[in-house]
Amino acid sequence: MSSEPNDPIAVRLRAAERIAREAGEVAMAFFEARATLEIAEKGSQDRVSEADRRVERLIRDAVAAAFPDDAFMGEEYGVAAGQSPYLWVVDPIDGTSPFLAGLADWCISIAVAVDGEPVLGVIHAPRHGETFVAARGRGGSVNGRPLGMDVGRGLGGGMFAFGGSLRCDAAATGGLVTRLMQNGGVAYHNGSGAMMLAYVADGRLVGYYDEKINAWDCFAGMVLVAEAGGTVRFGGPDRLEKGGALLAGTPPAFAAAEALVG
Amino acid sequence: MSSEPNDPIAVRLRAAERIAREAGEVAMAFFEARATLEIAEKGSQDRVSEADRRVERLIRDAVAAAFPDDAFMGEEYGVAAGQSPYLWVVDPIDGTSPFLAGLADWCISIAVAVDGEPVLGVIHAPRHGETFVAARGRGGSVNGRPLGMDVGRGLGGGMFAFGGSLRCDAAATGGLVTRLMQNGGVAYHNGSGAMMLAYVADGRLVGYYDEKINAWDCFAGMVLVAEAGGTVRFGGPDRLEKGGALLAGTPPAFAAAEALVG
Repeated sequence: MSSEPNDPIAVRLRAAERIAREAGEVAMAFFEARATLEIAEKGSQDRVSEADRRVERLIRDAVAAAFPDDAFMGEEYGVAAGQSPYLWVVDPIDGTSPFLAGLADWCISIAVAVDGEPVLGVIHAPRHGETFVAARGRGGSVNGRPLGMDVGRGLGGGMFAFGGSLRCDAAATGGLVTRLMQNGGVAYHNGSGAMMLAYVADGRLVGYYDEKINAWDCFAGMVLVAEAGGTVRFGGPDRLEKGGALLAGTPPAFAAAEALVG
Repeated sequence: MSSEPNDPIAVRLRAAERIAREAGEVAMAFFEARATLEIAEKGSQDRVSEADRRVERLIRDAVAAAFPDDAFMGEEYGVAAGQSPYLWVVDPIDGTSPFLAGLADWCISIAVAVDGEPVLGVIHAPRHGETFVAARGRGGSVNGRPLGMDVGRGLGGGMFAFGGSLRCDAAATGGLVTRLMQNGGVAYHNGSGAMMLAYVADGRLVGYYDEKINAWDCFAGMVLVAEAGGTVRFGGPDRLEKGGALLAGTPPAFAAAEALVG
């Protein structure tokens, strides 16, 4: 990821990584004390916790302090307009359900977009001690080593993630699992879309399909997957506001899955 | 887990935990060097690696040294008969697929059975730094704290794991995912049956169904789930040799899932 030290993308990538780590420390403290979290239920698996809100405020304040002209969009508190070309797109804790359950697969997802396209992404998984970073055209890494996608691996070469949130259609999701298995694939789901995208980018999963996902869940991961050599497609013109379908994977797994998801 | 220090179950539980940790160190060394593992393919997601075999030999030798009269059954090398009532049932690396992919959800699973019933279990997850232990009638713990199952939680109170290996029927698996979602559940699968059982026991998942699983994948986890207050059912009279269907969960999630799996 060589670049001029002061170019606006490099500066924001370093800041995003620093802020994600700071946010991760706060999130970990909540994780370790989660039995006492005050949870405002908004559904059995899309819970908003005090931790989500506290972590988003931390990130929002840190971005505003470092880049006061940039715009900001977070899962919990919506959009703050800006004067620069840069829009931060943030999920403070992606995978609230595994987070609240005590599972390790949750993360802080921070992306920066220009003209609606994500140009850099950081996914920091505190419980795993892993930080995935990438910027468009500059490559990607996890904990300092290059992302390890095997771009020749097909659908049967590893597990394939599916979105299984209650936003998704039950019959369509089950049907995808069946067709995946009929084609030599193994279905994977851990409850965190951003985490699953990071795993695709590092070659731990061969791909991921989600019928309905939000921009803050996937913008960072999209940059990771693309920079690792994978293929990714997300939603339509209104995807930033309304979300959409996401398909990501190694090029052959993407092509094979495209035929399965219809 | 109070008991006489020299009773045969307590002695074996302590030994199983010690051996699992030793095995974990060897497995972690392989995990960190896994790009170079020599893999003998026996299917796209049930790979036997050099690591599996080395770790099983380590466990087998350690058990034979400490309990020369006990019988031993491992995934990789089959059965060694014994003269005592105790049968060790071991999966050296449960979750070979996540292990080879670089995911964290793999573990060493060690159980001891008497008269075909598991009486103690240890599940050690080196990448997570977690060790789950339990003995029948003596409770269970993870890293020294009691297992945290919320026994009142139903199907919609967390994620529910399904077995998705290629041993399972594709249409039945997809159908279960659909019915789970139609009943407010969220489907989870990480590629390691033993790990998913440990998560059920600690309340991180509400339950787990696998159409076809082997005794070495689930015997340790069965003790954990039962000691945490959950309900578990596995196979028929030939389950030790041939495996069978497994259903485990909190009592209400077990009851709800029983209706869904048929």
